[in-house]
Amino acid sequence: MALINEHYLKLAGGYLFPEIARRVEIHLSDHPEAADRLIKCGIGDVTEPLPEAVRQAMHRAVDEMGARESFRGYGEPTGYGFLREAIAKGDFQDHGLNIDAEEIFISDGSKTDCSAILDILAVKGANRIGITDPVYPVYVDTNVMCGNTGVAKEDGRYEGLTYLPCTPGNGFVPDVPGDDEPKLDLIYLCYPNNPTGGMITHDQLKAWVEYALKHKAIIFYDVAYQAYITEPNLPRSIYEIDGADRCAIEFHSFSKNGGFTGVRCGYTACPRKLVGWTSDGKEIPLHGLWSRRWSTKSNNVAYIIQRGAEAIYSPEGREQVQGLVDFYLENARILREGCEAMGMDVTGGVNAPYVWIACPDGLSSWDMFDRMLNQANVVITPGVGFGSCGEGFIRISAFNSRENVVEVVNRMKMLSSEKLGV
Amino acid sequence: MALINEHYLKLAGGYLFPEIARRVEIHLSDHPEAADRLIKCGIGDVTEPLPEAVRQAMHRAVDEMGARESFRGYGEPTGYGFLREAIAKGDFQDHGLNIDAEEIFISDGSKTDCSAILDILAVKGANRIGITDPVYPVYVDTNVMCGNTGVAKEDGRYEGLTYLPCTPGNGFVPDVPGDDEPKLDLIYLCYPNNPTGGMITHDQLKAWVEYALKHKAIIFYDVAYQAYITEPNLPRSIYEIDGADRCAIEFHSFSKNGGFTGVRCGYTACPRKLVGWTSDGKEIPLHGLWSRRWSTKSNNVAYIIQRGAEAIYSPEGREQVQGLVDFYLENARILREGCEAMGMDVTGGVNAPYVWIACPDGLSSWDMFDRMLNQANVVITPGVGFGSCGEGFIRISAFNSRENVVEVVNRMKMLSSEKLGV
Repeated sequence: MALINEHYLKLAGGYLFPEIARRVEIHLSDHPEAADRLIKCGIGDVTEPLPEAVRQAMHRAVDEMGARESFRGYGEPTGYGFLREAIAKGDFQDHGLNIDAEEIFISDGSKTDCSAILDILAVKGANRIGITDPVYPVYVDTNVMCGNTGVAKEDGRYEGLTYLPCTPGNGFVPDVPGDDEPKLDLIYLCYPNNPTGGMITHDQLKAWVEYALKHKAIIFYDVAYQAYITEPNLPRSIYEIDGADRCAIEFHSFSKNGGFTGVRCGYTACPRKLVGWTSDGKEIPLHGLWSRRWSTKSNNVAYIIQRGAEAIYSPEGREQVQGLVDFYLENARILREGCEAMGMDVTGGVNAPYVWIACPDGLSSWDMFDRMLNQANVVITPGVGFGSCGEGFIRISAFNSRENVVEVVNRMKMLSSEKLGV
Repeated sequence: MALINEHYLKLAGGYLFPEIARRVEIHLSDHPEAADRLIKCGIGDVTEPLPEAVRQAMHRAVDEMGARESFRGYGEPTGYGFLREAIAKGDFQDHGLNIDAEEIFISDGSKTDCSAILDILAVKGANRIGITDPVYPVYVDTNVMCGNTGVAKEDGRYEGLTYLPCTPGNGFVPDVPGDDEPKLDLIYLCYPNNPTGGMITHDQLKAWVEYALKHKAIIFYDVAYQAYITEPNLPRSIYEIDGADRCAIEFHSFSKNGGFTGVRCGYTACPRKLVGWTSDGKEIPLHGLWSRRWSTKSNNVAYIIQRGAEAIYSPEGREQVQGLVDFYLENARILREGCEAMGMDVTGGVNAPYVWIACPDGLSSWDMFDRMLNQANVVITPGVGFGSCGEGFIRISAFNSRENVVEVVNRMKMLSSEKLGV
């Protein structure tokens, strides 16, 4: 009898975005006339065209595939050298960080990396896992799937995970656990943060690195929104912290800088010095395990796509990507300042393409979602969908046209003047 | 302390192809003058240009990504409807098979699918796993990685797996286990077979489906080489067998028909009727688990690539793909007939792009590999690399230029006349 992975049956009611899609569908079937005016600021999906440099590189690569001499079959298991070298130089060495091309692993994006990394680590609760709350749901669900949790409790939290609250009280950056608290073995951190748009300081990140080194923990550091950091003196990479190359793996994505959500490419940096342990205390470099994982379980990403990603690092590519980032950041500024002018309490939108807003008048996240949908025809993301500490907040995405962003602020002003949601 | 997945430490000495690459490197460093004359018939990697219809479709898709109105961000979690529909019609419904678009799951290729499928099944030996010998090494290694095996024994076989010998005696098709043998829960079958090039008959496949239905087992049926079936009355799909939609998932690849080894796209067919079981005997449809796996752990494949794959099903695409397949099949014929003329015992090359040759004069697989490399400057794959039943065989790939294939036969003739390998 073929037995299934029963951990899947623990997964609570479906992923956040399908639930949003369901409510939008109901709204539109009740109000078909609203379809044309609906503005989606929910899922963080880019809207602007792919940079010209990227498209040109992909056209050239497609043509190369049309001639026998330049045709490419199977590529390198962890990505082509040309891309790994462009990344190591552009994202690390040019910033004084000591990461080389052999420490870069190309993938089809952070969603894949976040789940694949669990393949090389012990499961079923052998590691104590620290996850911020609110959090990108994929971190949680992939841990459920591999048996690192118990069942979901009433508040949506899973038994067996250690939740690290991120609230206005701590500026949405979790405190390092005290000496009397259980020791964490794996720690997920994401800055600029999805969903709150908050940012971590150099000193705060240093405290986490020191914690990890002291307790032989590994930090999964997700910098998918790195390109949106505008304020000086904030850490762009965890490897700016001494010793992080012995305790951290960093997740990068081209989705939100190059507009690659539909192109699918990202990478991890896995330093050679980074080790995990066997249950009897032997040190094992993660680099070899991660290489083996990729060479056995995947043939990596299309040549054409990797050439497109490489173009992000060309002078034209950089300029065009910066143009995209500036555009979305200006959207974020409009959203943030608009909401602040309405007297709302807003985080994010400075170093991130998301604004995180405390719901007015004591509304719940889903109440506010429903009001925004039904009364303003705007789709946002309910904060509670990212974890119980997100209750009472909503996330608005700045990935949209300028026109739509301005319109969203105007509609919110109208609702606000009508005492939004009361 | 962050604990690693110690099952990775059981993996025997590295994947087959890296070992081949190592020996080739040594050969070329000892004989740099040989580099220009080296012919690679080892790894089954296509060599001919990507079909024009595919390239045109990808160019169009790249251009679409350059305009705001036609730009595509995140796609559908299990692949775009346009591709799933083209597949359901072209590969199933047009052949009278009842598989619909919702039962098709797009992926970046069979290597990914073969490993990902284990995510949704119980691990650590909860299922008894039947694997043919010789076999595509990825089936074995991915089972090692998730703890479905013990350690490797002297002959390279892993404790805990059930090996199904494929030998000249059974025509390289394993017999269904007898009533007194342990019941299998998961069964890997691949026809046309990699590496032997052998094919299964309708009746033989029917026996396996009946076995699976009787014992509530699931068959992983890999048809990556489906396009190479030339003889009539052979099963192109397991769903030609009654009841297979209740016990089989089918793995498809565009690598060997469309020449997609460097483009990365494939798919699985997972019928809605297919179920697995909880340990207390409850039926659970695999379709829902597989959907959840894909929507949580991946954002699927680039829009551009999926448009390229769709073009395989256009009238021009079909014609161009058939041209590629015919070209490689003619190579296979030349290899097969050439080797037969030398008095060798050859399987494959009729319904598959591989020929599987019994080493002459009692040579071992690696002996023959070394002789072919050192004396003929030809890289082949040692049969034993695919399992202990492959000892005494080699695999020659027909994926090459016509010129090279003819030259390989000529060099083998010269070696043969010098009493090859003795």
